[in-house]
Amino acid sequence: MGSLPSPHDLSTTFNPMDLTELSTESRLVTDFITQYYQTLETRPVQPLVKPGFLTSQLPEDAPFYGESMEEILSDVNEKIVPGLTHWQSPNFHAYFPASSSNAGLMGELLCSGLSVIGFTWSSSPAATELENVVVDWMAKMLNLPPCFQFSGGGGGVLHSNTCEAVLCTLAAARDKTMERVGDDKINKLVVYCSDQTHFTIHKGAKLIGIRPKNIKSLTTRRENEYGLCPNDLRNAIEADMKAGLVPFYLCGTIGTTALGAVDPIKELGKVVREYDLWFHVDGAYAGSACICPEFQHYLDGIELADSISMNAHKWLLSNLDCCFMWLRSPKTLIQSLAAEGTFLKGGSEMMVDYKDWQISLSRRFRAIKMWVVIRRYGVSNLIEHIRSDVSMAARFEEMVRAASDRFEIVFPRKFSLVCFKLRSNKKMVNGRKFNDDEYEGVKPSRDSELTRELMEKVNSSGKAYLSGVQMGRIFFIRCVIGSSLTEERHVDNLWKIIQETARSIMP
Amino acid sequence: MGSLPSPHDLSTTFNPMDLTELSTESRLVTDFITQYYQTLETRPVQPLVKPGFLTSQLPEDAPFYGESMEEILSDVNEKIVPGLTHWQSPNFHAYFPASSSNAGLMGELLCSGLSVIGFTWSSSPAATELENVVVDWMAKMLNLPPCFQFSGGGGGVLHSNTCEAVLCTLAAARDKTMERVGDDKINKLVVYCSDQTHFTIHKGAKLIGIRPKNIKSLTTRRENEYGLCPNDLRNAIEADMKAGLVPFYLCGTIGTTALGAVDPIKELGKVVREYDLWFHVDGAYAGSACICPEFQHYLDGIELADSISMNAHKWLLSNLDCCFMWLRSPKTLIQSLAAEGTFLKGGSEMMVDYKDWQISLSRRFRAIKMWVVIRRYGVSNLIEHIRSDVSMAARFEEMVRAASDRFEIVFPRKFSLVCFKLRSNKKMVNGRKFNDDEYEGVKPSRDSELTRELMEKVNSSGKAYLSGVQMGRIFFIRCVIGSSLTEERHVDNLWKIIQETARSIMP
Repeated sequence: MGSLPSPHDLSTTFNPMDLTELSTESRLVTDFITQYYQTLETRPVQPLVKPGFLTSQLPEDAPFYGESMEEILSDVNEKIVPGLTHWQSPNFHAYFPASSSNAGLMGELLCSGLSVIGFTWSSSPAATELENVVVDWMAKMLNLPPCFQFSGGGGGVLHSNTCEAVLCTLAAARDKTMERVGDDKINKLVVYCSDQTHFTIHKGAKLIGIRPKNIKSLTTRRENEYGLCPNDLRNAIEADMKAGLVPFYLCGTIGTTALGAVDPIKELGKVVREYDLWFHVDGAYAGSACICPEFQHYLDGIELADSISMNAHKWLLSNLDCCFMWLRSPKTLIQSLAAEGTFLKGGSEMMVDYKDWQISLSRRFRAIKMWVVIRRYGVSNLIEHIRSDVSMAARFEEMVRAASDRFEIVFPRKFSLVCFKLRSNKKMVNGRKFNDDEYEGVKPSRDSELTRELMEKVNSSGKAYLSGVQMGRIFFIRCVIGSSLTEERHVDNLWKIIQETARSIMP
Repeated sequence: MGSLPSPHDLSTTFNPMDLTELSTESRLVTDFITQYYQTLETRPVQPLVKPGFLTSQLPEDAPFYGESMEEILSDVNEKIVPGLTHWQSPNFHAYFPASSSNAGLMGELLCSGLSVIGFTWSSSPAATELENVVVDWMAKMLNLPPCFQFSGGGGGVLHSNTCEAVLCTLAAARDKTMERVGDDKINKLVVYCSDQTHFTIHKGAKLIGIRPKNIKSLTTRRENEYGLCPNDLRNAIEADMKAGLVPFYLCGTIGTTALGAVDPIKELGKVVREYDLWFHVDGAYAGSACICPEFQHYLDGIELADSISMNAHKWLLSNLDCCFMWLRSPKTLIQSLAAEGTFLKGGSEMMVDYKDWQISLSRRFRAIKMWVVIRRYGVSNLIEHIRSDVSMAARFEEMVRAASDRFEIVFPRKFSLVCFKLRSNKKMVNGRKFNDDEYEGVKPSRDSELTRELMEKVNSSGKAYLSGVQMGRIFFIRCVIGSSLTEERHVDNLWKIIQETARSIMP
């Protein structure tokens, strides 16, 4: 840590909250962020760096003496920014969006500035109550039935992410089930999901002690648009019960990761009610779209679910992190998660103590961020934001479809995710010529090879960033429209780049 | 959601990242925060509000049209701020501090502004590498042995909070143990902690499927300064093994919640190594103090631990949230937590994919915040900050000791937490007079009653905020010095208020 301090350095009192400094530095940082956004469009979306590139540029030890904000920002600019994948770039179409906005940023600033912790109602009453209000607001925006709202006997909470939400509901469902079947039966418990469900459910179930072999991914099929088939679920439950296992949890999805597929909530709900499973609905990405009336039919039957989660930080302009979770019976969750330290004794039943709704004790004041975002933009603009992305995705999908000589849509788009691949026409593979029948056998892998090559070339150009999925024998590209800065011209340009790249590898 | 939009409202394109607006609004919000801090000292630390006070003031539905930032901030000021417990007040001495700073706030602003997600190295390389650098920096600042540093074969990660860190290590230890003893043995696994350990360990262990009766809180004693006794641990392990159980995890603490007690790390470490338990050391609050050489002896023997966690957001000026965790064998953790989605395939062993070091997939860019805090202040100022708080706490403790006619220190202060209670001298309880012998029997509960009354009166005055603990028959007050704004005059004034209030209830 370097040499000892000279007397000079420690002579003045250190004041980490000097308000004049706060004003100067916040201007510096805001200007920096503004410049970052101004130049974002022209930056390579994914950096061309090798592992160790940054570690090797930074000192091995922390500085002993403080440095100026100017020096720090200069290093951010020269060393760090060039090594970032720019999730906010208008040319970022990989994974799912993490959509930022001015209101999201201002909400985060307020959250960090006030820096209160509402783990119990009394530890900061307004923090808890604002969260109660915001989760009810959003429940109504999505047209969730009153049973998921505080005003209707249910309630909600803001977690950091879906895995936290899923983990908490899994634990609640496990404990409720073990109360019924005996607390030595954890090895018998079975979780269901589909082969399209996000791996979060596997991770969460494993974390709460479910045996990996009892986490069952039911196969989905093209004829069901890759939604989980209710009959398959029923058959699996019956078979497992016959084998002495205890089915206890189902995770359905609105907008799966790979394809944006939707599980049939109502039909699945009927099955789980019959067998008394906990039914969680994960709307991490596409749940947000249900603020638009035209998407709300995907939630039909949601009153049969026990819990729902949705990441506002994905598509609702809320910056990282903010995951909504609603429950029909918060009491079941609280029974599982409540743990009392004597100095944290909660109050009456009238008060919500959010420490009992989540994994941790401390928590950020995310509610104020969400409240700022919703108020600043209003439901109307949030709807417009979703519709605009969906319409740009539809435009992109149309362009891909129109180029059917080379491209193929692998799954009909439901939201703002377009899944496509290359279609090779030349019956020449690795220098060998195939006839039609033979060719059908090698085609998927040949198409996959070319599609992967296409994606990698586009990504390494820095002009756009896409991700892909290997599903069975087929590799396809996922193009998500969702960055707050993406305009129609970016989508048109993306398509131009993809076509040019495709021509270069498949002339 | 109100009436339909008029055509006018949706005619202009909605731009959630207008840069002129960003500049204007960030000034508004920064000014708001500055004014908040300017008035913080005079605000009642805990608000006098009743459940429902805020819910009843806010509309039941989200606004359909957007509102201006001025309107929103005016509501924050008039409706929300008066209902907050002000954790950043210089008169806040409850729980543990959640220390803010200008650098912490600027770090959060950069984190939210850049808004990247480094769940794998390749999903934003600089985010991952900066985190590698920062956890190594902090490891060296605490003088942790090289085995916990990336540069020495270990490594670290930034979680949101201690419960996440503990949960991850519990899962890793569980899976490692079950590999050895069989995956049907989860009901046999035993976790050890002391009766002073934070309830997080109970919550975490229950979450990963450990039976509540197998989570064993060993009783601590005054003669060991409420540290966990190594012999008690050994006896418990031996007894449990004889009973067919499988001891697998110990949580030790540096700076317990109630008292700031410290478990004897080296002696406990020797026992756990003998029986091959996972040894986690929780330094949530007082771990930070070990950046000062005079506190580093508490870490003696830390090389015998498997993992260590420390909340920088408590005492290291880092705003919520940031919990450091270091591991000797990251591989064991990764084996337990890795779950692959095909579109998230990680890279070579040279790259750290942080999704496999934590519960969730998405994650905030906390590393840039910590990096800004450490660079802006340097190790020297961070040390000064800790020392200044400790010295103010020592001053407070001295004043309490000097007033031994009425007050009693219940546990010798180690860091910046002072635990004290009232000492009643009048042998009159509920109107009845007692002789000396009889009185010894009723004294603790009488003292506790008065101490609780003292705390509640001070808290309801709004002039300061303290928390208390009921430990056995004794209730005492915890006074933590740690708010970034607290100066000596606040501590002196706090003592004045406490004395006056004590006189009013015990003339």
